[in-house]
Amino acid sequence: MRNPVQEYLEQIVAQGGDAGGEVAPYIPELAAADPDRFALCLATVDGQVYEVGESEHRYSIQSMSKPFTYALGLHDQGIEAVARKVDVEPSGEAFNEISVSPDTGRPKNPMINAGAITASSLVAGDSGDERFARALEWYSRFAGRELELDPSIYTSELETAHRNRAIAHMLREFGILDGDPEEVLDQYIRQCSVAVDTRDLALMAATLANGGVQPRTGEQVLEPALVEHVLSVMTTCGMYDAAGDWVTAVGIPAKSGVSGGIIGVLPGQVGIAVFSPRLDPHGNSARGVALLERMSTDMELHLMHVSRGSRSALRSSYSLETARSTTRWQGADQEVLERVSDRARVYEMQGDILFAGAESVARQVVQDAPELAIFDLTHVNEIAQVSRLTLLSLRDRLREQGAEAIAVDPDGVFPDPRAGTDEASPIFTDLTSAIEWCERMLIRTHCGPRPEPDPVEDHPLVRDLEGASLEAVRSAMTRRSVPAGEVVLEAGGDFAGIHLIVSGRAVAQDDAPGGGTMTLVTMGPGTSFGELALGTDGVQETRVVAVDDLELLVLSAADLQRITEEDPAVALPIWRAIAEDGYRVADRALRRSAVRA
Amino acid sequence: MRNPVQEYLEQIVAQGGDAGGEVAPYIPELAAADPDRFALCLATVDGQVYEVGESEHRYSIQSMSKPFTYALGLHDQGIEAVARKVDVEPSGEAFNEISVSPDTGRPKNPMINAGAITASSLVAGDSGDERFARALEWYSRFAGRELELDPSIYTSELETAHRNRAIAHMLREFGILDGDPEEVLDQYIRQCSVAVDTRDLALMAATLANGGVQPRTGEQVLEPALVEHVLSVMTTCGMYDAAGDWVTAVGIPAKSGVSGGIIGVLPGQVGIAVFSPRLDPHGNSARGVALLERMSTDMELHLMHVSRGSRSALRSSYSLETARSTTRWQGADQEVLERVSDRARVYEMQGDILFAGAESVARQVVQDAPELAIFDLTHVNEIAQVSRLTLLSLRDRLREQGAEAIAVDPDGVFPDPRAGTDEASPIFTDLTSAIEWCERMLIRTHCGPRPEPDPVEDHPLVRDLEGASLEAVRSAMTRRSVPAGEVVLEAGGDFAGIHLIVSGRAVAQDDAPGGGTMTLVTMGPGTSFGELALGTDGVQETRVVAVDDLELLVLSAADLQRITEEDPAVALPIWRAIAEDGYRVADRALRRSAVRA
Repeated sequence: MRNPVQEYLEQIVAQGGDAGGEVAPYIPELAAADPDRFALCLATVDGQVYEVGESEHRYSIQSMSKPFTYALGLHDQGIEAVARKVDVEPSGEAFNEISVSPDTGRPKNPMINAGAITASSLVAGDSGDERFARALEWYSRFAGRELELDPSIYTSELETAHRNRAIAHMLREFGILDGDPEEVLDQYIRQCSVAVDTRDLALMAATLANGGVQPRTGEQVLEPALVEHVLSVMTTCGMYDAAGDWVTAVGIPAKSGVSGGIIGVLPGQVGIAVFSPRLDPHGNSARGVALLERMSTDMELHLMHVSRGSRSALRSSYSLETARSTTRWQGADQEVLERVSDRARVYEMQGDILFAGAESVARQVVQDAPELAIFDLTHVNEIAQVSRLTLLSLRDRLREQGAEAIAVDPDGVFPDPRAGTDEASPIFTDLTSAIEWCERMLIRTHCGPRPEPDPVEDHPLVRDLEGASLEAVRSAMTRRSVPAGEVVLEAGGDFAGIHLIVSGRAVAQDDAPGGGTMTLVTMGPGTSFGELALGTDGVQETRVVAVDDLELLVLSAADLQRITEEDPAVALPIWRAIAEDGYRVADRALRRSAVRA
Repeated sequence: MRNPVQEYLEQIVAQGGDAGGEVAPYIPELAAADPDRFALCLATVDGQVYEVGESEHRYSIQSMSKPFTYALGLHDQGIEAVARKVDVEPSGEAFNEISVSPDTGRPKNPMINAGAITASSLVAGDSGDERFARALEWYSRFAGRELELDPSIYTSELETAHRNRAIAHMLREFGILDGDPEEVLDQYIRQCSVAVDTRDLALMAATLANGGVQPRTGEQVLEPALVEHVLSVMTTCGMYDAAGDWVTAVGIPAKSGVSGGIIGVLPGQVGIAVFSPRLDPHGNSARGVALLERMSTDMELHLMHVSRGSRSALRSSYSLETARSTTRWQGADQEVLERVSDRARVYEMQGDILFAGAESVARQVVQDAPELAIFDLTHVNEIAQVSRLTLLSLRDRLREQGAEAIAVDPDGVFPDPRAGTDEASPIFTDLTSAIEWCERMLIRTHCGPRPEPDPVEDHPLVRDLEGASLEAVRSAMTRRSVPAGEVVLEAGGDFAGIHLIVSGRAVAQDDAPGGGTMTLVTMGPGTSFGELALGTDGVQETRVVAVDDLELLVLSAADLQRITEEDPAVALPIWRAIAEDGYRVADRALRRSAVRA
């Protein structure tokens, strides 16, 4: 079947057609290029390359080498040292203007020739040959294959490089270049003459999009901080004197070359390269510009595009008055909760929590000043560093008030730097358990220490039974101890009876679709497990594992069957209690997975 | 309690201290400013303003008026007409350079004086007075309060405006300005003399951050497409000749003024304004630049910052071989599924699905070429337009192969443009139901039409009973019809018995914590409802509503109680069947809300 992305690219190429322009006239070898050649490639940050047209046709890299040479200069010398030799200011002038600062002689930026020649001189190496060899190897690491010089382009350019020769000598005069300017000029022209195809260029761009990691080789070619720097300079200076038009119309970092190529970078997503030798009056590929404009609009690539402005990071917030756990508190406990449950509040967040999202949560929490705050991160995908620090700082402010913040974080998106210490906050995997914990805390705080519920006496199989039924269950139950980490029930066996937890915790797990493990439920004292097999035709589908040392009371399947067969009148209340407990579990699980309208 | 965002801002202000620089010398009124005044404000897109320092101290807006005047010109004349008069290219020169294109006389951009004076002339109005009044009202709409002219600044500037007078007359000579250049100059100087405080400026910036909607008044002041355009120009041209330094070091759209203010815009998140009259050699507030640099780093504001590069949109993908529903298929059906279940595949996506995310899903689906594809969007927050189109196109390609794609979309993030037509794909709210649908489709395709399950005969209350128990249930059940939309069971009542769905669908709903409604479960023929009340102490906690016209068979609570009391031997198998069905519901719900390790 066809890939819709491939189809889309073919479609915009077909719809775009010719965009006019003329092949670069001033270098004989470029002037000889077939003006109708065309290629468009898109490389993803995981190395998939989409290709339309003659994607393996080779041509000289020309000025598209500039960001990579500049990156190498930064890599070899550091940002400070490079900045002393070449600035990062847009020149607003054509690529071949000399454009140096009148006072310092420093070229305006590394995307014009003066700055690019300077950047070439900053590559580590003792000679032009060494520096070129290093640059060629560097470009090759971005492309993911060994690139080579095109000797005919090199010869052709060298003969007609009058303006660049003038620039190089002037830079030497200003003290920006050291040593022999002819050597740097030769190196620079060789760099411009490296042969690439459109696929190479897309992968080079994708390496920048991927934070400096080459998508196919996995090599970290350029440090992330330098990637950010290079992309910034490409954004403001990459498209010759048309930089501003480019930023307003297309809005992604890019660099063009007079051979007819343009590379574009969408940070975090894709690298794009397009090739069409007919140039517009600014010296950019006319068809390339038109296609990138089209893709920017269709694909919402523009850096200033606001796609998530309207979506709030705070999905909802509410007090425990409207969100009680399924636990039925008795008597005085219930009265306390009715009085103080508004002092605990849930903050449900969603999506990627950027700064603005954390701010909105912080503001709401500060306004509410709750005694207990539950940060529900169930629907959160990622928390930016600044947001994590803001939420941790918010917890500290709450603790200064004698309050506490706890997290519901099933996916582990909010690691606690104090994890493992006494100062760590409890973390829950579901909201109901977190709410139940808060209810218990509120009761303890507001009516003094209370007896914990009795794990055996309060279980439905004891609490809801009486007479012969209760006696039958009590006399049949046997104690079992399971050390932490051991499997209590293997998956695949028959229903093994009802396991009531006296102390410790256990988890019911199963293999997750697609690999890994999933935890269906975590169980503590007063709850029981094993009954789920009743719902799956008597087959124990989950694996139950002891989290802590477990003390159990077990009503075995055989005993339950015996009681059932011996006396229906005794067995009936037991099955009714089991049924009610089953729907208690179902109700809680359904609420946890409920869908909001 | 303290707000951690407020604390953070106070902290960076205290740590930053003085950054040197000199108060602007060339306008007497500005030269007289107290160099030690300071304010920092941050306004969120929902209108919260954080303030540090003298946030209500007023000063003249100066060049920070330029983006807003330019926006008004665009609003009044359109992008094309404005572009004929003023370009969008960075000038690389100081703000007071004349900087016009040598051939057309067109100013390089609207952030330098020549371009800003031109933009002033493009505001709709028949005179300088009318245009100024319109500009003042326009700025006021961004600030959310009525701004006023500072007459002393105006007088002071007017007297010393020799360079701007020269610029205005030159623009008239070039035909860029029409009419009397003195009138435009006077208008321009009045615009620069509008008095604002740092809080106003933060809200003006936040209006741009908020897609043109003023955060406090809610007014759509500027069209979103023009916001994108203005922010692009601010990015490349906003910080005078230091534009490139700004983009590399801070990387957000900004504009400074010689009075010592800087505004910065973080699209979708916040507007920032800082005020400190000491200027660096570029004419930007020295302390302001230092603070914005610090905030950009701490808060990861840089536009080129890649925060989500490593996170895949495709959480996992797997075939139905490893992810079967909880339905137990019998005999030939089961054999067919064992043979062909690898032809149906689940694609679990997560987060915000941008272009690159949709591409990775499309690629995997194309590679797998499944017969049935389930797009599981449970963990997806938002799907960009381009991604939605890519997924829809992917579905079309699948259908061309005789395949089908269905969605699990509990939050409705993936609306189907064909919804309501025969060509719509089924949409499910949970994965288990989607898998079950696919299993049924696979069985139908690969072993011919099968009888649909009988909603009554296959229900556990019929299927698992025999003899007197079956007879008791059959004779007690009564038919009930409920029209679509009507409430079947109100919340708050007592357990009302078991409602078996013969045809139609129903939903069990409850009030969501924090407002709104949540749907616990959607039920179709062959399932039953009402039993959840058994798990909540006999109280019907959910409201059950008929989605379609419902045909029910009801075993009332009274009849169930009568059977239970009359003969335990008859009742026991019934309660056992109810218990098993309860755990069937529980198992499915627990799997739906399971937590992956």
